[in-house]
Amino acid sequence: MSMWESALKDTVQAIEPLDAGKVEEASVHLDQLTKPPGSLGRMEDVAKQLAGIRREIKPDLGRKAVIVMAGDHGVCEEGVSAFPAEVTPQMVMNFLNGGAAVNVLSRQTGTDVICVDIGVNAELSHPSLHSRKVRFGTANMAKGPAMSREEAAEAVMVGVRLVEELAGQGYGLLATGEMGIGNTTPSSAILAVLGGKDAALAAGRGTGIDDKRLLHKQAVIARAIEVNRPDPADPLDVLAKVGGLEIAGLVGVILGAARRRIPVVVDGFISSAAALVASRLSPLSASYMIASHLSQEQGHAMLLEEIGLTPMLHMDMRLGEGTGAVLALPLIEAAVRIMKEMASFADAGVSGASTPANG
Amino acid sequence: MSMWESALKDTVQAIEPLDAGKVEEASVHLDQLTKPPGSLGRMEDVAKQLAGIRREIKPDLGRKAVIVMAGDHGVCEEGVSAFPAEVTPQMVMNFLNGGAAVNVLSRQTGTDVICVDIGVNAELSHPSLHSRKVRFGTANMAKGPAMSREEAAEAVMVGVRLVEELAGQGYGLLATGEMGIGNTTPSSAILAVLGGKDAALAAGRGTGIDDKRLLHKQAVIARAIEVNRPDPADPLDVLAKVGGLEIAGLVGVILGAARRRIPVVVDGFISSAAALVASRLSPLSASYMIASHLSQEQGHAMLLEEIGLTPMLHMDMRLGEGTGAVLALPLIEAAVRIMKEMASFADAGVSGASTPANG
Repeated sequence: MSMWESALKDTVQAIEPLDAGKVEEASVHLDQLTKPPGSLGRMEDVAKQLAGIRREIKPDLGRKAVIVMAGDHGVCEEGVSAFPAEVTPQMVMNFLNGGAAVNVLSRQTGTDVICVDIGVNAELSHPSLHSRKVRFGTANMAKGPAMSREEAAEAVMVGVRLVEELAGQGYGLLATGEMGIGNTTPSSAILAVLGGKDAALAAGRGTGIDDKRLLHKQAVIARAIEVNRPDPADPLDVLAKVGGLEIAGLVGVILGAARRRIPVVVDGFISSAAALVASRLSPLSASYMIASHLSQEQGHAMLLEEIGLTPMLHMDMRLGEGTGAVLALPLIEAAVRIMKEMASFADAGVSGASTPANG
Repeated sequence: MSMWESALKDTVQAIEPLDAGKVEEASVHLDQLTKPPGSLGRMEDVAKQLAGIRREIKPDLGRKAVIVMAGDHGVCEEGVSAFPAEVTPQMVMNFLNGGAAVNVLSRQTGTDVICVDIGVNAELSHPSLHSRKVRFGTANMAKGPAMSREEAAEAVMVGVRLVEELAGQGYGLLATGEMGIGNTTPSSAILAVLGGKDAALAAGRGTGIDDKRLLHKQAVIARAIEVNRPDPADPLDVLAKVGGLEIAGLVGVILGAARRRIPVVVDGFISSAAALVASRLSPLSASYMIASHLSQEQGHAMLLEEIGLTPMLHMDMRLGEGTGAVLALPLIEAAVRIMKEMASFADAGVSGASTPANG
């Protein structure tokens, strides 16, 4: 086993289950607060999950960040996207200059944007850029593997090590984001292989392709799977052959967060493809994930169902970058605040329910 | 026509349509920003709606508040709720002391809580309470009208006039909230009458009643409709006979907001029953409403569909108080920020799409 794959294996082995006792303690606390039991719905689920993750029922999550991993895709030469590949580096500069949607929504929610070049097919330089390039874009997966197994493992470890750094800087709530023209194509391929779906079902319109190009994209995905024969029982093989560098980086962000007991909010289709790979590498990692929104991209609901996640926001968004995840971060913070600040029936002198509902 | 009903009629007549030119201008602006056209989904819809409401594409919304209207329900004597009626005044004091869920979520989102006693069946006093009591709770609608037509119109005008005051104080984004033990029962009755639904379909479990009590609640609603014969073509008649004081107050909040061109974010089941009444009194008022969340309460989806609204948050919440609406307020502010701060393709030097998707 190679160095990076061995480091990845160590990371996976270090991930522990949630603290079931703290989940139960949070549940008991929630039922004493001045509301009908369970009436805050998903917010109560998140509060309990956070208690299990952080091992305390009223955790301080600390600083929050969205990690935007950027990479290019050789498969773009097949004409699968509405936008030209040159848009990837252009958008990275837009992120670094604060003009993209993810920047705007991050300012709205008090979130730091951590922009990572993990595989952009251009030389990029900026004081705020995290330059962790594994290679200049993937190869065309319609003709052969997108990258080597070793490169895939290295890209995963870029994400793991970045989370390690951020944890040391006081970040305790992370969101996933990405940029990479063409990256709904490998994400669909991952769904097709790991979820056992037909390429035609797994592929959607991405940034907005027409019917003709959608049929072509489906055919390209089917060909990539046929040419590479990724092994569904070997998630790293799938990631290397039909994945992407930014997708691999996000797999690492998720595994790294799980290892450091940090909740990680998963964005849309591409991020969820990474989350599916992470959950196959480490089933325990899924309990550290929180789904943010349901993307309009066909296949996103299938990915979330495969992992067992339920999204909170239904905004018909399909932009990626981490935009949906960033919008969900205040909901996570609200769940913590409920635990910390709400009055109990006893404190407030409020009568309880007269039916078994209160039990 | 009585004094209050006449004032209500004047309010309705003063409501104007959205500014279609500004909606179009916002749409053109959105398509120049660095994202695939339409990819921010509902956030773009909200941005366009706000432009039409405020008559400018980058509006300053100003301060935001959730208006929590509280009232009691004579129908509680039929045993329709899991909680005793004394909880209404107890929870009002909890709101005033900052311990309820709506207070916690309002602090999280920078929202002021405006608590209004419009019909609590108790003497209440607190420096922060807006005392606008129309009467001490409604009468039992299972035996006769919940209130007189004049009282219903007066309660609506409490809401209208409160919005007028708040607008003068710089509030430009409002959310609806309510408290009133038993108030899913009149809300279900409103849905049944105005939506033409069977009482069994319109009624849900409220704060958490069991099967037996749910059947009883359905029968009580059916009886209230049979005894009072509210006229579906006369929304004020429906509100008076099978409504509630806090529901009427929220009808006024919505109509008042529409008249003052203030966007109003609608909470869950009870607030949406008020929104349905408002939309029947003034169909134009619906274009000033923004739906926040989809409640777990049976019937909420039907109410939103009747009005033509689509919720953004799917949190399985069923608490009321305005909790769902308050959580959605940052999403509205985010939509404004997208309009103000996002870079255009030209500004950022980003290439556009190569397909008709960009058209």
